[in-house]
Formats: sequence, structure tokens, C-alpha cells
Amino acid sequence: MNIRIIIRIAGIILLCEAALMAAPVIVGLIYHEPDSVIAFLITMAVTAAVGLAMFFLNRSHGQVFQREGFVIVTAGWLLISIFGCVPFVISGSIPNVVDAFFETISGFTTTGASILSDVEALSNSMLFWRSFTHWVGGMGVLAFVMILAPLLGTRNNYLLQAETPGPESDKLVPKARSTVKILYGIYFGMTLVLVLLLMAGGMSLFDSLIHSFGTAGTGGFSNYSDSVGHFRSGYIEMVIGVFMLLFGVNFKIHYFLLLKRKLSILKNEELITYIFITVFATVTIMVSIFRMFPSGWEAFRAAFFQVSSILTSTGFSTANFDIWPQYPRTLLLVLMLIGACAGSTGGGFKVARLVLIAKAAKRGVNRLVHPKAIKAIRMDGKTVDEIVLSNAGVYLILYIFIMVISVVILSLDNVTFEENLSSVTACFNNIGPAYGAMGPVGNYGGLSILSKLVLSFDMLAGRLEIMPLMILLLPGDRHLR
Amino acid sequence: MNIRIIIRIAGIILLCEAALMAAPVIVGLIYHEPDSVIAFLITMAVTAAVGLAMFFLNRSHGQVFQREGFVIVTAGWLLISIFGCVPFVISGSIPNVVDAFFETISGFTTTGASILSDVEALSNSMLFWRSFTHWVGGMGVLAFVMILAPLLGTRNNYLLQAETPGPESDKLVPKARSTVKILYGIYFGMTLVLVLLLMAGGMSLFDSLIHSFGTAGTGGFSNYSDSVGHFRSGYIEMVIGVFMLLFGVNFKIHYFLLLKRKLSILKNEELITYIFITVFATVTIMVSIFRMFPSGWEAFRAAFFQVSSILTSTGFSTANFDIWPQYPRTLLLVLMLIGACAGSTGGGFKVARLVLIAKAAKRGVNRLVHPKAIKAIRMDGKTVDEIVLSNAGVYLILYIFIMVISVVILSLDNVTFEENLSSVTACFNNIGPAYGAMGPVGNYGGLSILSKLVLSFDMLAGRLEIMPLMILLLPGDRHLR
Repeated sequence: MNIRIIIRIAGIILLCEAALMAAPVIVGLIYHEPDSVIAFLITMAVTAAVGLAMFFLNRSHGQVFQREGFVIVTAGWLLISIFGCVPFVISGSIPNVVDAFFETISGFTTTGASILSDVEALSNSMLFWRSFTHWVGGMGVLAFVMILAPLLGTRNNYLLQAETPGPESDKLVPKARSTVKILYGIYFGMTLVLVLLLMAGGMSLFDSLIHSFGTAGTGGFSNYSDSVGHFRSGYIEMVIGVFMLLFGVNFKIHYFLLLKRKLSILKNEELITYIFITVFATVTIMVSIFRMFPSGWEAFRAAFFQVSSILTSTGFSTANFDIWPQYPRTLLLVLMLIGACAGSTGGGFKVARLVLIAKAAKRGVNRLVHPKAIKAIRMDGKTVDEIVLSNAGVYLILYIFIMVISVVILSLDNVTFEENLSSVTACFNNIGPAYGAMGPVGNYGGLSILSKLVLSFDMLAGRLEIMPLMILLLPGDRHLR
Repeated sequence: MNIRIIIRIAGIILLCEAALMAAPVIVGLIYHEPDSVIAFLITMAVTAAVGLAMFFLNRSHGQVFQREGFVIVTAGWLLISIFGCVPFVISGSIPNVVDAFFETISGFTTTGASILSDVEALSNSMLFWRSFTHWVGGMGVLAFVMILAPLLGTRNNYLLQAETPGPESDKLVPKARSTVKILYGIYFGMTLVLVLLLMAGGMSLFDSLIHSFGTAGTGGFSNYSDSVGHFRSGYIEMVIGVFMLLFGVNFKIHYFLLLKRKLSILKNEELITYIFITVFATVTIMVSIFRMFPSGWEAFRAAFFQVSSILTSTGFSTANFDIWPQYPRTLLLVLMLIGACAGSTGGGFKVARLVLIAKAAKRGVNRLVHPKAIKAIRMDGKTVDEIVLSNAGVYLILYIFIMVISVVILSLDNVTFEENLSSVTACFNNIGPAYGAMGPVGNYGGLSILSKLVLSFDMLAGRLEIMPLMILLLPGDRHLR
């Protein structure tokens, strides 16, 4: 493995992060927050210095192959979280280092799980940086799922096939750049439209930026303790509700719909399933919580918003769904596991994989009755490669193993079983709020350091779709040569 | 599909059940329980009449192929549960039909989940029948896993390969009879030894029969409210603890060890993993509950007994493990999911499948780094057929789907999330006691009819390793021709 090129690219990533910190500095200057500005400036200097050192001390010109890609993406997410938490620590906003790291990796992985008991006590620039990590994380995710993930053997008709390197290529070919440009164009554009729509609903520019970052990255950090519920506005709830769903859609769909005007893309099986799940969950939850709200419209609003927020792995809330009846609570937990569409900024197991394994299961049962019938699985009219199926199976196994091991480790902490399972689910699938002490009105601050580190690992593992971390954990250098 | 032969064989199964009811009649006569004796005699007459009608009205001599086998095994388990619950109902022991059915299918599937709040109020003959269903169910399971399951595509080196029909045969060949004879010989012999050992520990013949039935079938019904804890005897706890583990071992191992004196069988990977899990869980749980017991020996006893009871899917208890700390509670829940060895009377996902999917996951990760390396998975020195792997994957998917759907349906009932998940886990994996209201000192009586039916389905689905039920649920007759 080419360690030098990895360090070099990690250096570039840190330089980018230092540059991005200019944004909270500007916010701090506008709102006259000298302590925060100084914290950011110091961090910028340190981050830039380290980044420059890493960049210039490794003048390697080797190529980046798949394995290097895995290491870079994992190391990159870890490094920006480590350096990104420094302003919180040195400004005293989050004095505990583990807490600050948890909050920052939660931001960059677009999870939105917080250790803060009083988010409103933070300065505006800190709040801005905290939410900005979501937006930046979302950009990272898009690049990751479109360029690296296809190399993970999930290349399939549900990814931007035309734009991504074909199976014959192991390198990150230059073509990927144009993909990323298109994706980022859509991402920027949708964020901008959302900001404008929210401002039209009466939000300040600052609030609308914060909530647009959280929506676009499907992160879920808000600058208010009661999240989106703070605004008590049906308009704002519906706008964010719809945009969360949009950011949870495979960006391939947006691409073909917006730029190519190809309506046939709407027949996409993942999209249809995603819409079906949303409608089914919204209607049944609405019925279940009907009596808790003064009107049907308000019950619908609450149900729709929460379903959209959880399914897309955002984690905003307009109501304390932890006190809802067992049916919505349980169904929301299932939605957490399912997650959004592949090729979106959303987390979770992904609807496409769900459709795929359901088809594999159906074929498996059929095969028992007709052992000689070897039938390929088709999705969106195309045959799915057996290796893709096999990888979905491997993903499912690792997914369960990580969940189970995390739950067992967290059981050493002082939490109920429900808090434990829902926290692991919410972090591993990049949702944010869980149940009980970690519910929408609670936070993760009360957990032990071990639990926080396990959940941080889960956030990263979920965000990177497990595989890159697994490869790094493989024993022996022989795998990493 | 040959419906006539199915009805004919189901008739034979009912005739067998009628004959087996002679046992509780004898018990009733000994203990002077005329009401119970009459209830059994009436049921015997009805069951025999229906069985005879089914047998003689269908004089078909067709062969039993795989599909007929699936239908017979599913229908058989359902029928013996329906007729088997009649004595409970007409004697007034369990007046509610759904409750009686739940209790009986829990018995025959060797689950051990009970709706009884006061088990000791039952007559001796009712208690005997209740536990006898475990022992009979265990015999059914052995026949099923050794003869039918191999046809389900799980034929592998971890099953009695030499004795079971090879892949080329789709019929239930006569060879199977000799397999069953050997298995039943081991099963009878081990049960007899256990009865004698328990009597040597001071148990009455009746109590030792009840607890031997529960141990052999890995069922877990006791005739005492506090289960095996009733005897307050380290000797009895250790004997039952060890025998539960023995009945949870693949009977292939017993066969080669006892009858062929082949020590090399102890290198079996499933067995080694099974022992490792037992030791790991016992030691860590012992440490965790150490302070709750007066001595280390008693903490060890409690930990070992509960681990053995849960891992083997028996469900006996010597302590209320529901009030233990979160770590043992959580780990026990994980053990419920894992279950015993394939080819035993135990339930759960099975250790062999766990080993298999772990190997598949490891290969999947390796393949990302070395995409061209096509490596077969080996188990016990032999190459595992890809179709076996694929079936284990399909099994995992269906296993999760059934769990999730069951939990969502149960959430409509008035239960906490933990009670819900643990009940589904305990029933689907044929354990018995769960947590909360359904814990070792509670029962399933408080659930709604819907929940009880879902859990009954889960017990049967878990017991029959899902597939036979799935085939029956496949839409359209084209699958069942």
C-alpha cells in the first residue's frame, strides 16, 4: 500500500478543512464573538500547518488504487473530526475532548447525535460550524457513494452507472470528477432553493442556513433544543419534510429528472419502494397518534415529518416521538434500520439493498421448490450481477454483527435495553436521536467514554457502509500491500 | 402436489398422538384424577376417529416428495397442537382455546413459553402431558432436521451426511428410517440416564420425568413456578445444566462418539464454537452477577445454568435473570438468537449457520482486496457448497424479516419495546421465557389474541427453520404442483 500518497491526500483534506473554517470565522465576526473567532483561527492555523506538512513531506506521485481509497476515506473522516472538534474544546463550548469528538464525528457523518444538554448556550459561530459539518459531510458522502462505493462491489443499476468507473477499472479515473461536479451542482442548487423557501416562511438567514445544512446532509443538528418544532409552522415543517425526502433520494434520480428530463426514471424500483414505505408509515402512524393531536392535519404533519426525518436518517423532530405509543415508536425504529436510498446523503441499510435481499430471499424459497431453475434477479429491468447480491448478503451479515457487538458493549453502561438498542441503531444508521435518555428531548452526554467511542465507531462504520473499516481491520499486512 | 398422501400421513400422525395420550391417562389413574382422565379419553377418541378417517379415506400410494414433506411437517405440527390442546380446554385447566393452543404449540415446538400464571394448579396428568409434548416434539425435531432439513438445501458436513439421502435424491428414502432409529436410540438413552441421575439427586420419578422431558426436547416447561430453582440443589442444577448442553449438541457428534468411538469428531468447528460461546458467556456473566450471590460457586452455578438453558433454547431457570444487570440480560438475548447446534433438539439460528455466515463475511471482505481470488469456504476440512452458503444467507434474510414483522405487529399490543423484542426472540428461537411481564417469573397470558397467534406462528416458523412455511406461503398453485 502506498502510505505516502495516503498521507499526501489526507493533508489536502486537512487543508480543505482549514479553509472551510473561514465560514464560522465570518459568522463569529458578524455576531461579535471574539472567543469563538480566536478558537477557529487557532484551529485553522494548526490544521493548515499539519495539512501542509503532510502534503509537502510526501511528494509521491503514485496512483490511488481501491485499497488506498478505503484508507483515505476512513482516515479522512477521522482526521477532519479530530481537528474539527478542536474549536469546541479550546473555546470551552464543549470542554470534554471525547464529547467534542463525538459531536464532531456525529456532524461529519451526518448523524446528528448530540451530547449537548443545552444547545442554545453555544455561540452562533459554534452552532454554524456544528451544522456546517453536516453539509460538508453530505458532500463527502456523495463523493464516497458515487466513486468509492461502486468499487466496493455495490456497482449496480441503482448507482450512477454511466458516470462511474466500470468494473474493469480499479483506479479512481478522472471521469469521477465530472460525476462529482454534477452531484455537487444538484446538492448546492437544492440547498439554495431550501434556504430561500425557509426564509420565505419567515426564518432568519442564519436559522435557515442551519436547518438547510441539517436537511441537505440528512444530519439533523438544530440550533434549538426543540429542533424544527421550535418554529411552530406548518409551512416550515412541510418544506423541511419534503426536502429531507428529496435529499434521501438517489441523486441519480435528480440527475436524470432535472438535467436530462427523463421521466422514465420514476419507474425506479428503489424510488417506488421508498415512496411506498413513506406513505405506509405516515398513514399508519397518523392513525396511531390521531388522538394526541387537536386535529387530523396536525397529526398528519407530525407523522409525515417524523417519518421523513427518520427514514432519511436526518433526525430533526417537531414532537417528542419518544412518548408516542409503541406502534409508531417501533415502526420508527424499523425505519431507522431501513434508511434512505442508495446514492443519497442518507444513511441506514438503504432501500435498494432491502429490495435486493427481499428478491434474493424470494428466489431462495422458490429454488427449494424448483431446484433446477437458476433464475437471475432483475432490478429496474436489468439483471443483477451475482457478486452484487453476494455483497449485499455480506453487508447484511456485517451490519448485524456490528449492531450486536455494539449493543453488548453498551450493555456495560448504565442504560436500559431500549436506550441501548435504539442508540446503537440511531448512531449506526446516522439518524441522531434515539429513545429514553437519548431521545429527541435528551442527549448522549450521560454515556460512558467507552460507549461514546463505540457509538462514534458505529457512526463512521455506518457512514462508510462498513467495508472500508473492515478492510482496515483485516489482520496482517498481506491484505494491505 | 399429492394432497391425498398428505392427508393420509397426517392421519397417521394423529393416530400416533392418540396413542401417546395413553401416557397422561396412566398418570391420571395413578394420581386419581378422574376429570383429567376423562378429558384425555375423550380427546383420544376424537383424535383417533379423525386420524382413522383421514387415513382410510385416502388410500393413495403415491410417493412423498420434498414438497409433500414440507406440507406434512407443517400440517403435522399444527394438527397435533390443535388436538393436543383439547384436554386442557375440556378439563377446564386452560379454558381459553387460544391460550390452550399457545401452550400446546409451545410444547410441541419445544419452546416452553407459557400462558399459565399458576402452573402448580394443574393436575399431574395435565402437567405430564404438557411436558410430554416437549419430549415428543424433540423426537419430531430430530426426524425433521435429519431427514427433511437436508432437503432444504442445508445438507452439509455438519449434518449426518452418511445417513441422509444424497443430493441426487428428492424422495424420503428408506435409509432415513435407520437414521431415525439411531437418533431415537441416543435420544431415549440420554433421557433415561438423565431420569436416573435426577432421581439419584433426590427427585421423585414424576418430577424427574417432567424435567427430563423439558431437557431432552430443550423445551423448558417445569411443574414448579420457580422452575429448576425449586429444588435448591447444586447437584440437580449441574446435571440439568450439562444435559441441556448435551441435547443442544449435533446428534451426529453423539453418534460418532458413543457408537463409533471416533474422538476426531471433537474437532468439529461447530462444537468448538458452541463450547467457546458457553465458556465465554458463563465466565463474563459470572463476573457481572458476582455480587448478587453469597459465594463464587453460587454465582458460577447461576451463570452456567442460565447460559446453558438459554443457548440451548431450553428456558429452564434457577434465578430470575430478568433482574440481573444489563450485560447478562443483553448477552442472554444474544444467546437466544444464536441458539444450539444444528442437528440437535435445540432452536435458534444455530451455531453452524453462525460459523458459516461469519466465514462468508470474512471472505466477502477479503474479496474486496483481492477481487480475483475465488476461494471456497471450508468447514471441518471440507469445501462448503456455494448453494449451502446461499441458503444460509436466504435463511438470515427471512429470519430478520419474520423478527421485524412480528415485533411491529406485537407493538400494537400493550407491551414495552423490551418485552416485545424479547418475546418475539424467545418464541421464534424456541426458548420460552423472555423479559418483563413475559420474564422467568411472568407469563404470556396477558397478551392479545393477535399477539399470541403471531408468537405461535413464530414458534412454528422457528422450529421448522422457516422454509417449509415460506413455501406454503408462496402465492399460486404453480409452486405446489
